[in-house]
Amino acid sequence: MAVRKARQTIQEFSLISGLQRRFARSESGLVRGIGDDAAVIAASPNTWWHLTTDLLAEGVHFDLRTASHESVGYRAAMANLSDIAAMGAVPRYLLMSLAIPKTVTSTHIYNLYAGLMKACRLHDVTLIGGDTSASKTGLFLSITLIGTTPARRALFRKGAHVGDRLYVTGTLGDSLAGLQLLTRGKTSRSTPRRSASLRTSHRHFLVNRHLHPTARLTEGQWLNAAQLATAAIDLSDGLSGDLRHICEESRVGAELHLSEIPISVPCRAYADLHRLQPVQLALTGGEDYELLFTVSPKNQLTVERQARARGYRITCIGTIRPRRFGLQMTSSDGTLRPLPMTSYEHFRK
Amino acid sequence: MAVRKARQTIQEFSLISGLQRRFARSESGLVRGIGDDAAVIAASPNTWWHLTTDLLAEGVHFDLRTASHESVGYRAAMANLSDIAAMGAVPRYLLMSLAIPKTVTSTHIYNLYAGLMKACRLHDVTLIGGDTSASKTGLFLSITLIGTTPARRALFRKGAHVGDRLYVTGTLGDSLAGLQLLTRGKTSRSTPRRSASLRTSHRHFLVNRHLHPTARLTEGQWLNAAQLATAAIDLSDGLSGDLRHICEESRVGAELHLSEIPISVPCRAYADLHRLQPVQLALTGGEDYELLFTVSPKNQLTVERQARARGYRITCIGTIRPRRFGLQMTSSDGTLRPLPMTSYEHFRK
Repeated sequence: MAVRKARQTIQEFSLISGLQRRFARSESGLVRGIGDDAAVIAASPNTWWHLTTDLLAEGVHFDLRTASHESVGYRAAMANLSDIAAMGAVPRYLLMSLAIPKTVTSTHIYNLYAGLMKACRLHDVTLIGGDTSASKTGLFLSITLIGTTPARRALFRKGAHVGDRLYVTGTLGDSLAGLQLLTRGKTSRSTPRRSASLRTSHRHFLVNRHLHPTARLTEGQWLNAAQLATAAIDLSDGLSGDLRHICEESRVGAELHLSEIPISVPCRAYADLHRLQPVQLALTGGEDYELLFTVSPKNQLTVERQARARGYRITCIGTIRPRRFGLQMTSSDGTLRPLPMTSYEHFRK
Repeated sequence: MAVRKARQTIQEFSLISGLQRRFARSESGLVRGIGDDAAVIAASPNTWWHLTTDLLAEGVHFDLRTASHESVGYRAAMANLSDIAAMGAVPRYLLMSLAIPKTVTSTHIYNLYAGLMKACRLHDVTLIGGDTSASKTGLFLSITLIGTTPARRALFRKGAHVGDRLYVTGTLGDSLAGLQLLTRGKTSRSTPRRSASLRTSHRHFLVNRHLHPTARLTEGQWLNAAQLATAAIDLSDGLSGDLRHICEESRVGAELHLSEIPISVPCRAYADLHRLQPVQLALTGGEDYELLFTVSPKNQLTVERQARARGYRITCIGTIRPRRFGLQMTSSDGTLRPLPMTSYEHFRK
């Protein structure tokens, strides 16, 4: 449920964000409205409901020249599952709407549903409804996903305190590297010689991380149940943008240790080959769908011990600082620089 | 939450409907999945939640040459409120996603939200979230609306029995007449002389019924609370199509009395002027957002008496027949003919 940017002036999205906040109002039963990964409603004395929605547009969020309909359906479900993961919730019900142009065939639609349902089955989510429309232009998907937590038990973007440690799950930058591998193969900017010299297993790993990402649901549910995280968000817009969201909602600053950011071996190999900074892929690359969360210093050992015992990869990449500190990053040589404002702008053409 | 058709082969939509049913499964807590105006979940021992979603595409569901952004927002909310009305539920929370092309300005977005919020305020609905994306082509809106009823108390499409009387609220065909007035004024098929000779107050009434329809929420809630309706649906695709949905879900047939269909004075005047059958506008005209419902013969007097006392306009327009009877319509001369399959195909260009 993020505000996504793609060749659009930031002003318009700020306007919408402002309008939404202006029109928002508190109501009995509403725990959290606009401003988090999901809206939260106290559905019963014992249960909170988490609702998230995403609208995915052809040419903006996916490119049917590089992604199959199956992976479009799969990724659309995962993007929403990841929002639910960031709340520490259990996903339950899904609604999907489609606007379908004439160029889309029955087989395409079947494959799209097959991808969506593959992701749903993995997490025991039930498809309960949707809407189907014609589209005069591209393919559009809209998904609404509903998850649950026990009442008064959820992870929010707000809640990070000065001194808290900043953690991420998994490795960052893989999805953008995978997307670039797919795109370079299809556009005039292609560099087949270089891409070809990337080890096949590395290429497969990165492309798969882009086309079939994994929402960190078990990790989110663990952090929530064990009350180990003070705030959380999923990495859909890139570390730089999503850390900014946590800091804004928690009214704090943050210091990021660039050398600590977990980069996979294939991502590092890809970056070396293309003379890129792997950390740049991690900072600006969206759609890794890892979790970014904060942990009180007193729980740092516990969270690391429990993660190890459960086989979850988590990495401490920084510290929450006072608001006036802003967002800064420390290079390996110890110099501090402001964190760039860049966020992932889906693929450009 | 209807399957909408607009210049699309019916086969594709049947495929989707088939796929959705195939992938649907029962789960604890799920009262009703795909196949009604809304999905229904037993959210707590005392409360049922009703979820409906609609995806609206520029050039298919709305035309920005004939409708303002304000009315697009208003109608999008009303289309979903009408689904909630058909369940007999109280609307509570709304999520709206937008995919915005570069041609849309800040003022357009403001007006769209203003229209949406006008409809929400009328019915005490809270905007709780959404998503915003760029669009490389037209404007797309996706709305998800959540309503509530007491547990085990809702109106469904299934439930109509042989012998039940068929009722509608309000008058039918007004919205299509209003749309035709707007479209004729803007396209080469315009007949300004004829449109001009329609009384101004009639023109205003019909155009307003199209641009600012009214979801029949109080009527739906009354029918549900008083347990007077055996089945219900909202008229979004036209009487012919929506009656078919009730009959399919209830596994019955129906006889429609054409001469009983309530037609407003302005709609009749418009039809006369353009040598149209007003009943044709009612049968095929979508987006009237009136309720179509069935009542057991023993409750017929009660429903009519209560409606009169509350100031609701309801009209008996037919009778539920056995399934083998199919769907037939009786003309004023008493002849029976099969009900045509036509449904409202949003505007054509």
